[in-house]
Amino acid sequence: MKLGVCYYPEHWPEARWPIDAQMMREAGLDVVRIAEFAWANMEPEPGHYTWEWLDRAISVLAEAGLQVILGTPTATPPAWLTQAHPDVLRVDRNGRTRQHGSRRHACPTSPTYRALSRAIVSAMAARYGQDARVVGWQIDNEFGGGKTARCYCDRCADAFRRWLQARYGTLAALNAAWGTVFWSQTYDAWEQIQAPDDAIDKPNPSQELDSFRFCSDAFVAYQQEQIDILRASAPGRFITHNFMGLYRDLNQFDLAAPLDFVSWDNYPTGNPDRWRKLLYPFGVDPGRSDPVYAYDVGDPIITSMAHALTRGLKQRPFWIMEQQCGLINWGDVNPGVRTGTPRLWTWHALAEGAEACVYFRWRPSPYAQEQYHSGLLRHDGAPTIGLAEVRALAAARARMAAVAATPFTAEIGLLFDFDDLWAIQLEPHRRGFDYLRHLFVYYQALMRLGLPVDLVPLRADLSRYKLLIAPSLHIADDERAARLRDYAAQGGGLLLGVRSGFKTGSNLVPQEPLPGALRELVGAQVTHWQSLPDGVEMRLESAVPSLNTPATIWVEYLQPETARVLAHTASGHAVWTENGVGNGRCHFLGWYPTPDQARALLLHLIETSAVPFDLPPLPDLPHGLLAYRRGPYTLLLNFTDQTLTASPAGAPVSVPPRDVLVLTS
Amino acid sequence: MKLGVCYYPEHWPEARWPIDAQMMREAGLDVVRIAEFAWANMEPEPGHYTWEWLDRAISVLAEAGLQVILGTPTATPPAWLTQAHPDVLRVDRNGRTRQHGSRRHACPTSPTYRALSRAIVSAMAARYGQDARVVGWQIDNEFGGGKTARCYCDRCADAFRRWLQARYGTLAALNAAWGTVFWSQTYDAWEQIQAPDDAIDKPNPSQELDSFRFCSDAFVAYQQEQIDILRASAPGRFITHNFMGLYRDLNQFDLAAPLDFVSWDNYPTGNPDRWRKLLYPFGVDPGRSDPVYAYDVGDPIITSMAHALTRGLKQRPFWIMEQQCGLINWGDVNPGVRTGTPRLWTWHALAEGAEACVYFRWRPSPYAQEQYHSGLLRHDGAPTIGLAEVRALAAARARMAAVAATPFTAEIGLLFDFDDLWAIQLEPHRRGFDYLRHLFVYYQALMRLGLPVDLVPLRADLSRYKLLIAPSLHIADDERAARLRDYAAQGGGLLLGVRSGFKTGSNLVPQEPLPGALRELVGAQVTHWQSLPDGVEMRLESAVPSLNTPATIWVEYLQPETARVLAHTASGHAVWTENGVGNGRCHFLGWYPTPDQARALLLHLIETSAVPFDLPPLPDLPHGLLAYRRGPYTLLLNFTDQTLTASPAGAPVSVPPRDVLVLTS
Amino acid sequence: MKLGVCYYPEHWPEARWPIDAQMMREAGLDVVRIAEFAWANMEPEPGHYTWEWLDRAISVLAEAGLQVILGTPTATPPAWLTQAHPDVLRVDRNGRTRQHGSRRHACPTSPTYRALSRAIVSAMAARYGQDARVVGWQIDNEFGGGKTARCYCDRCADAFRRWLQARYGTLAALNAAWGTVFWSQTYDAWEQIQAPDDAIDKPNPSQELDSFRFCSDAFVAYQQEQIDILRASAPGRFITHNFMGLYRDLNQFDLAAPLDFVSWDNYPTGNPDRWRKLLYPFGVDPGRSDPVYAYDVGDPIITSMAHALTRGLKQRPFWIMEQQCGLINWGDVNPGVRTGTPRLWTWHALAEGAEACVYFRWRPSPYAQEQYHSGLLRHDGAPTIGLAEVRALAAARARMAAVAATPFTAEIGLLFDFDDLWAIQLEPHRRGFDYLRHLFVYYQALMRLGLPVDLVPLRADLSRYKLLIAPSLHIADDERAARLRDYAAQGGGLLLGVRSGFKTGSNLVPQEPLPGALRELVGAQVTHWQSLPDGVEMRLESAVPSLNTPATIWVEYLQPETARVLAHTASGHAVWTENGVGNGRCHFLGWYPTPDQARALLLHLIETSAVPFDLPPLPDLPHGLLAYRRGPYTLLLNFTDQTLTASPAGAPVSVPPRDVLVLTS
Repeated sequence: MKLGVCYYPEHWPEARWPIDAQMMREAGLDVVRIAEFAWANMEPEPGHYTWEWLDRAISVLAEAGLQVILGTPTATPPAWLTQAHPDVLRVDRNGRTRQHGSRRHACPTSPTYRALSRAIVSAMAARYGQDARVVGWQIDNEFGGGKTARCYCDRCADAFRRWLQARYGTLAALNAAWGTVFWSQTYDAWEQIQAPDDAIDKPNPSQELDSFRFCSDAFVAYQQEQIDILRASAPGRFITHNFMGLYRDLNQFDLAAPLDFVSWDNYPTGNPDRWRKLLYPFGVDPGRSDPVYAYDVGDPIITSMAHALTRGLKQRPFWIMEQQCGLINWGDVNPGVRTGTPRLWTWHALAEGAEACVYFRWRPSPYAQEQYHSGLLRHDGAPTIGLAEVRALAAARARMAAVAATPFTAEIGLLFDFDDLWAIQLEPHRRGFDYLRHLFVYYQALMRLGLPVDLVPLRADLSRYKLLIAPSLHIADDERAARLRDYAAQGGGLLLGVRSGFKTGSNLVPQEPLPGALRELVGAQVTHWQSLPDGVEMRLESAVPSLNTPATIWVEYLQPETARVLAHTASGHAVWTENGVGNGRCHFLGWYPTPDQARALLLHLIETSAVPFDLPPLPDLPHGLLAYRRGPYTLLLNFTDQTLTASPAGAPVSVPPRDVLVLTS
Repeated sequence: MKLGVCYYPEHWPEARWPIDAQMMREAGLDVVRIAEFAWANMEPEPGHYTWEWLDRAISVLAEAGLQVILGTPTATPPAWLTQAHPDVLRVDRNGRTRQHGSRRHACPTSPTYRALSRAIVSAMAARYGQDARVVGWQIDNEFGGGKTARCYCDRCADAFRRWLQARYGTLAALNAAWGTVFWSQTYDAWEQIQAPDDAIDKPNPSQELDSFRFCSDAFVAYQQEQIDILRASAPGRFITHNFMGLYRDLNQFDLAAPLDFVSWDNYPTGNPDRWRKLLYPFGVDPGRSDPVYAYDVGDPIITSMAHALTRGLKQRPFWIMEQQCGLINWGDVNPGVRTGTPRLWTWHALAEGAEACVYFRWRPSPYAQEQYHSGLLRHDGAPTIGLAEVRALAAARARMAAVAATPFTAEIGLLFDFDDLWAIQLEPHRRGFDYLRHLFVYYQALMRLGLPVDLVPLRADLSRYKLLIAPSLHIADDERAARLRDYAAQGGGLLLGVRSGFKTGSNLVPQEPLPGALRELVGAQVTHWQSLPDGVEMRLESAVPSLNTPATIWVEYLQPETARVLAHTASGHAVWTENGVGNGRCHFLGWYPTPDQARALLLHLIETSAVPFDLPPLPDLPHGLLAYRRGPYTLLLNFTDQTLTASPAGAPVSVPPRDVLVLTS
Repeated sequence: MKLGVCYYPEHWPEARWPIDAQMMREAGLDVVRIAEFAWANMEPEPGHYTWEWLDRAISVLAEAGLQVILGTPTATPPAWLTQAHPDVLRVDRNGRTRQHGSRRHACPTSPTYRALSRAIVSAMAARYGQDARVVGWQIDNEFGGGKTARCYCDRCADAFRRWLQARYGTLAALNAAWGTVFWSQTYDAWEQIQAPDDAIDKPNPSQELDSFRFCSDAFVAYQQEQIDILRASAPGRFITHNFMGLYRDLNQFDLAAPLDFVSWDNYPTGNPDRWRKLLYPFGVDPGRSDPVYAYDVGDPIITSMAHALTRGLKQRPFWIMEQQCGLINWGDVNPGVRTGTPRLWTWHALAEGAEACVYFRWRPSPYAQEQYHSGLLRHDGAPTIGLAEVRALAAARARMAAVAATPFTAEIGLLFDFDDLWAIQLEPHRRGFDYLRHLFVYYQALMRLGLPVDLVPLRADLSRYKLLIAPSLHIADDERAARLRDYAAQGGGLLLGVRSGFKTGSNLVPQEPLPGALRELVGAQVTHWQSLPDGVEMRLESAVPSLNTPATIWVEYLQPETARVLAHTASGHAVWTENGVGNGRCHFLGWYPTPDQARALLLHLIETSAVPFDLPPLPDLPHGLLAYRRGPYTLLLNFTDQTLTASPAGAPVSVPPRDVLVLTS
């Protein structure tokens, strides 16, 4: 378990550098990330590089015993660059060109920007690639941040057309895939095709899904150019990118694939506050914090889900590349952070599979956009409570390392797919129906039961799971169905939910009975679906008494073919089926569950699993206390201001407010 | 009473067509509307027509005994058209040009678009105008849908100036009509004039009203070109257009005038949900459905008002050209539709004066924007409950035909005027004051009393009404006043409400005492008006005890000249007057009534009518039950999930949930 | 005390003018403001002036004994002007060019517009500058109204760069002042610099603050050109501008400096309704009116604050140049105004230091944007209740004059600074933290105690105050600190609040301990700050029992150096300090107070003041009753619909609803 910090030597006089480095080292830090926004300092004029300051900064840090991570600075092109090459600027969905003065204002499809990015990265890599003091590289910074995932410039339109040509070959194939016979949309020249922007009322969802995919692929290709340079010039150094947790606009799995490991930027009082508007189930006021948690810790279940998705990107341990250690500047309230909280966050990351935690930032910037974003020091250079916390954590490094050395293992997998997410986002059909929110119903139920869960793509190794949940496996084809069938046939339990199998790969509805390619697996047809207004309930009768509460939100009627019925509506329509598949089984839940229903369902599925579970659920875990079981260790994290008591291993244990207990069996 | 369906043969393989036609016929359908979005299929390249597929589709349908209605496809210009002629694209109020990829992206004033529209319609008419299998034509589709009524392109600006030249002749006349002396707005060159867009802060309401009129006239002229072609080439075939109920951005009366009859597209779970935000009176939470109604039927009183306006467009029976028969895809929740509901909607349309009901659609599209919009079949081609409903309705055709053969007669007229609506929309003065909402206060009171009412323009034959209500006859002139005086003098009862007579035809305030041209008719002056904040009440004393509840929202003080006072405020200001006019009378109600006040007022006016009413009010009608009395028939429609009981003809009758009873006297 | 009215002779036939003038005179009016929107009437073609109508209008008014104020018409350039010179049009933050058809559509930095403005003002001044009937001039109209303070045209971008060159000299200085080292923002050519518009995501706050200053300076310079012309050609005539109360987008102090006196446009049912969304403290529903006040008077404390700021602009009496006298047209509800209310507003203005009250308007316009804005006459020319009120006020002129002759004196000053306001607006850090709202907490507490208070800039003469409050003296430097130290050293009491001293003049955080330049004065450091989410409380222990309620919203921990601690948190952090400064003292309140806390604090500070106060607080004043003590007079104004009783001078006095009592001691 490494600890580190983000540092901006270019912000401070050189005379301060050794003092800072010494303080870092004394605090027990191992690594320092630098340089990721310093393009103008490295190349103040076109082609004129000024590495000397960076050389000196690296030296000062290395001499204090710190390892250096370099960020490529391509998120912040200098003013001379965009002045000389205005064609690199991105254009938003409303047609406005983004200007210099912030960051991420360049477009990844721009050939000019690509060439200039390659040049700066090549120059950096040539100078530092084999520098022993530099242990790894971060590519760019937070791809897609500030709503920059999608660009609507003319270069992107051209590139989109080329991407479509590569995907479909002919216009005839594209017209078929997009169903352009509808509303005379048929294309007879490639130049007619646009990425749908805000000038189009209600765009074609097939076209829009492809435009989302294209934009994501553009970042994947842009990143790959930097990876290729670094692989060649910086052998043996790790390459990563700092992701943004539950960020939805780019396909994180695709971006993660070529990296050595992934990292993410974890701001518990910022991100969850934004995501909770999206995630909380119907009926919970989306604007208010859940009152259970302490006001300065953020919603820990949402943070957990972001950790879990990041862990799932490569199904291996990850880094926190930016870890909040005090108040931030971009949230709604930006509450002050109290003693204990940074420690709680660090242990939480570790519990979820992080193997390094790099705090953001060393000292707050006196300058520009992030003046109100705190660090481990104050503006005047004095230490904060955050620094004291880090020092204490570093002192307890052995215990952290012992826990980190045990693998994070989950018996339950939750399938995650960006195509499914986007397709439902484009056609929610019912206000509030959202892919991520649907997943979160299960995710929070599992966390409240203390059960570890992985968020994984369908292409992952599924055999490790005893239960696999796909709340909305929306896009289906024979290959996907076969993977799931193989999984189940080997004894796995599979749970599919509403809206599964509703779409083809090009976002059309299949012309066969729903759930299309998944029908044989499910052993039933979906004959009809009902979106229910808020407050409307549909009574159910289930074989499992704890599930005999009414259905709300969304109901699908099932007509069993090979499956048996586990629940039906008062009017007699089947809404829950179980189908035997080889040694395993496939459940289909024909309604959108409440959190309580999800909990009851999960307990039932675990209890009746063909393969018994190793870790028992912890149904008595109090709200606000998270439990992680890692090898011989049980971690209990209290995210409230009250002392909470749990009995994860028999005897009751009390956890003080905002504290962490590590029990060893 | 005809039944029909909308069909898109171009979406399906030809081998499927005979199966579909056979199923339609077996379900008892009479007519099929086709082709209205198929331009790219008819003319895949400029000037190259491919009628063969359409010939075959018409043959297949006709051979199954179905009559064909053809839609002109001008709402969906092909990609080659807009690529070759970008000058046809419309521009929105923010200056953005709409692109290919959806529909209604062309501008009706574009000479290029007009010429191309004439060409395709001429070609269609030449081929099918005298085809015996084609019984009628629909022009274009839903003029103005998707917020396309108003265009801000340069061609429209030019056309607007020409329209103004024709209307005003000289700039001096225009300057006077628009009151441009205010804020130095005076024009001294025609080219200076623009349609006010979002770049103008708080535009001149006279200029804006004229720009609304111009945009409406542009569609009238555009439609007329197609009508002229069809009249010449398709003799004896009916010509209609599918309107959108309470749609407000175009003058529906003007568009309706040259048509043989009007039709409209009725989506009870979609339209009312949008309109209820607008229509429900102050104090009712506008975001929530009235809990009385079943969740899948929509608000039946709002649907009724849309039927009534459509019936009033030409004061004769109309068609439903698109009738919802399952869930839709463009509403907020899009609730599922249960057995019984499509039948209820169909009888409701019939009760309101529809003489045909064409269901939308035969089979849901697997493609593009409307994949989640259901039809009479499922996506896989299997029948839905909707088809079963339609089959049962077709079987009961005789009873429907008998009711349809009786004329819809109303003793009460509600005046409707788009100029009045727009003028108040441009200057509501008080948050929430809306013309349509004001009318709806009376409309819902009448429906709750089981009283039929027509929505008619002032130019209609008014002599048929015993009571005529103009809640806000906002724009007044001598001609309008004379029509009303003539009506009243012959024994009619006229009720005028607040904001009547406030404006001249060019949207200025008259410089004479209010209500301006209506003053003599009213027999009183409006000396002062009060807009009251929410929660503020003004106590009243009225000669009619049931009206002694406080006034809210808006109050006008009256100074009687020839009228007598029927109510006054606690401070002694007259707020309700009655003026004798020949054999009749004119009431002026000086406040914005609550629904209960409107009900009490209506009962009072009917009771004291100079000419006795034939149909008594039904004050005991339970909420959610609509009653229609058509000749010997009384129709009772229950829009709730409870059995409701009423005694429209003496003895109590129970109507099951979502059911229709037809009583014969 | 003068009374007057705004009049638009160009709207009416000349035959009406003598009637109007006679009615004005009979109503007791003294002055008439005319011409401020009549450019098109004065110069209907370029360079062709038509003064004759204006000559006659002035004559008619003068002959009736009325004094004339002329407005320069530059807020409304004619259509020919913008058609011939489209480069004068302003561009909004979204890049849209504003068009003719409203007002304020020209940009003050445009050289063309400047030249044309100078030309029309020179011509007017040449004709009327020495006209004895014209007693004064109003420059333009409501600078910045309709969101026009800031323009984003290319000319403004150029002028901004020149302004920056003048301010910073070199790019190096600018880069340092803006901290452009952050995110590679460094500029190496002046042309790279833009005013941050909506195309930039999260701009640099130093850059944005300078762009706000530049826009304000542009209006100052624009105004100065007109002042220079009038000073030369209209000797002895007063020059003023009509401000907009609490308007925040321009630096009102800078605009006021070169004027003889300032005036403002007071619409009590309009402005406060907009401002209350901004001003009311956390926890009060911002959308609802405080139910205490009568519905047609507006929020009187907000109106008072606008009077006070206007009075503070030059620290001398001011005019109301437009005083609401009936309903307006631009508010949310625009409630009707009852008898008594215009009189109440007039006395309120007088009590706050107005020396003239000019009603808006004589007669409502039948034309264009303001048809629903009432006047002293009705649309048809008949008198309204407003006119009756004015006549009665004029008859009681002697009493008003006697009160007006006494100086408005305050023992408490509230510091107001537009740079501070803007800097916090650009980085509120916590939702709802607003400079003006923070001031209003104190302002309303003072008004509820009947204590007069001045809103003054730091550069004013501070020695007159016994207590000086700076809730957020955000930007600090040595000069500012020295002024405050001098004030306190001479015996003054100074209260500083949270976020004081957080910023430098170029909007950076100082790199020394907070509150930076104010640290010595405060005698303590701010070591940490906490923004608290809604509902989170921090318990305090204070030496003043009435202040022992919890802190909310925002807390700063203090580390005393020379100060003594008056309150600390339950965790032991100091949050209120008092530091002796010469003969006076400086308090630092380390949290954002509730209104009750502000009241308790004020009472404590007054009670313990080094220099005793002359006017005692009136702690028993009922809510809704405002008390002003001016020399021998005590004015009691009741803004409610109930009779209220107070004892400002011992014996209880009852004030009827919406009435004014003037007591003489």
